[in-house]
Amino acid sequence: MHILVSNDDGVMAPGIIALARAMLPLGKVTVAAPSDNQSATGHRKTMHKPLRVKRVKFPVEGVTAYATSGSPSDSVAVALLGYVDEPIDLVVSGINRGPNQGQDLTYSGTVSAAFEAVIWHKPAIAFSLCDHSEDAEYEAAAAIARQIVQMKLYERLPPLTLLNVNIPPLPLEEIRGFKITRQGLRQYNDELVERVDPSGRPYYWIGGGVPTGDVTEEGTDLWATDRGYVSITPIHLDMTAYAVMQEMEAWGLGEVMPEA
Amino acid sequence: MHILVSNDDGVMAPGIIALARAMLPLGKVTVAAPSDNQSATGHRKTMHKPLRVKRVKFPVEGVTAYATSGSPSDSVAVALLGYVDEPIDLVVSGINRGPNQGQDLTYSGTVSAAFEAVIWHKPAIAFSLCDHSEDAEYEAAAAIARQIVQMKLYERLPPLTLLNVNIPPLPLEEIRGFKITRQGLRQYNDELVERVDPSGRPYYWIGGGVPTGDVTEEGTDLWATDRGYVSITPIHLDMTAYAVMQEMEAWGLGEVMPEA
Repeated sequence: MHILVSNDDGVMAPGIIALARAMLPLGKVTVAAPSDNQSATGHRKTMHKPLRVKRVKFPVEGVTAYATSGSPSDSVAVALLGYVDEPIDLVVSGINRGPNQGQDLTYSGTVSAAFEAVIWHKPAIAFSLCDHSEDAEYEAAAAIARQIVQMKLYERLPPLTLLNVNIPPLPLEEIRGFKITRQGLRQYNDELVERVDPSGRPYYWIGGGVPTGDVTEEGTDLWATDRGYVSITPIHLDMTAYAVMQEMEAWGLGEVMPEA
Repeated sequence: MHILVSNDDGVMAPGIIALARAMLPLGKVTVAAPSDNQSATGHRKTMHKPLRVKRVKFPVEGVTAYATSGSPSDSVAVALLGYVDEPIDLVVSGINRGPNQGQDLTYSGTVSAAFEAVIWHKPAIAFSLCDHSEDAEYEAAAAIARQIVQMKLYERLPPLTLLNVNIPPLPLEEIRGFKITRQGLRQYNDELVERVDPSGRPYYWIGGGVPTGDVTEEGTDLWATDRGYVSITPIHLDMTAYAVMQEMEAWGLGEVMPEA
């Protein structure tokens, strides 16, 4: 088995090192990831400028690693579109520093690397650790990631569907098990912060606190990790709101004609 | 009514000018959009660097316009988080040069501007014209956009749900009407193209042809515009694959315990 590993925290982030190391007993491992931190980049495709790809020395023996100047999904695309010769069987992304839950999914570079993989018909899993701190500990999360890959759940997913895994920041023996979950409800606490540069002109930060969310609604990703479970959410690229679609059929749009 | 207009083609693109002009009879119009083209940027939140916001002279009288150094969704966030004083009632994004259909949605800057709006509890509509050409004609699409806003469909949508509208590149009298659709199936034709710089080092483009897709599957966005209809897809930020989730419940993960 040949596993491609990517992320959005950058090719030298501790989370991707732990993930690549955890995959090594399962087969050949290749890393392709952004050279620098690309958190919250979303699903970005770089078409208007060229990409650089550079082989880098990776701190796990036996792993070939490439740093790209592009986004997480660019890194995956470059690898899958032919930069990496040997066929790839599975793409794993992460381990992200911080959770990717609720509405985070559309912003998430980690998850978008996995989107890109399924777009190119490769199974994919995104892994995130629910700990934003600089000194987060990835050992237990990496063991969980290996265990989930070994279960081969990804072989049973329909096209354009992937697994989004969030892992609580606990030692392995304190993790209570696995839950199949749905996307929960995030709450963002962003604030617009104005600063003034030395020449007197204003500039702005999107600042504010870390996102929170509803951990009380049973069955969601936020609920599961809050209770010490590993959250596994099957997600897909079809964003159609089917219930609303059905409702809208009754709104009589079929009879309206375009007018100036 | 106060309408915020954004896009991903940049604040001076013909599509946003046509859209802002079409909104003007409906109320106050403010434009906040990236200063340059940000196609396929995805849903990017700029947190690691500051944003500049600049008032610009916009070619539609009565419209206040701001150019930002950020992404489409940054532009919307900046406006909604307080840069624009007067409360905003509706966010419209576009008119994009080229369709946003099928799997395009996760890449689309146009759609992500609308994602950002619903995250901040504002109704939102994304408009795209199914014409990639430089000299695309936005008049008919702008009339359609005004008509859709006037129908006030957006007032009847649940939270975190928006409308993704794709308009065929036809004169108004040739557009056959409106269809409520679901996301269809896109096919990408990307290729990795290697070039060599003057110092002999390789670099890469994600090139290849324009995306195609399945226009034969009735009821999809691709199908509707291919047949001359305006496609209106209700989309939401919940990417949970519910059918798969139910199936996975039977896979016995509840009994598995984490192991090293």
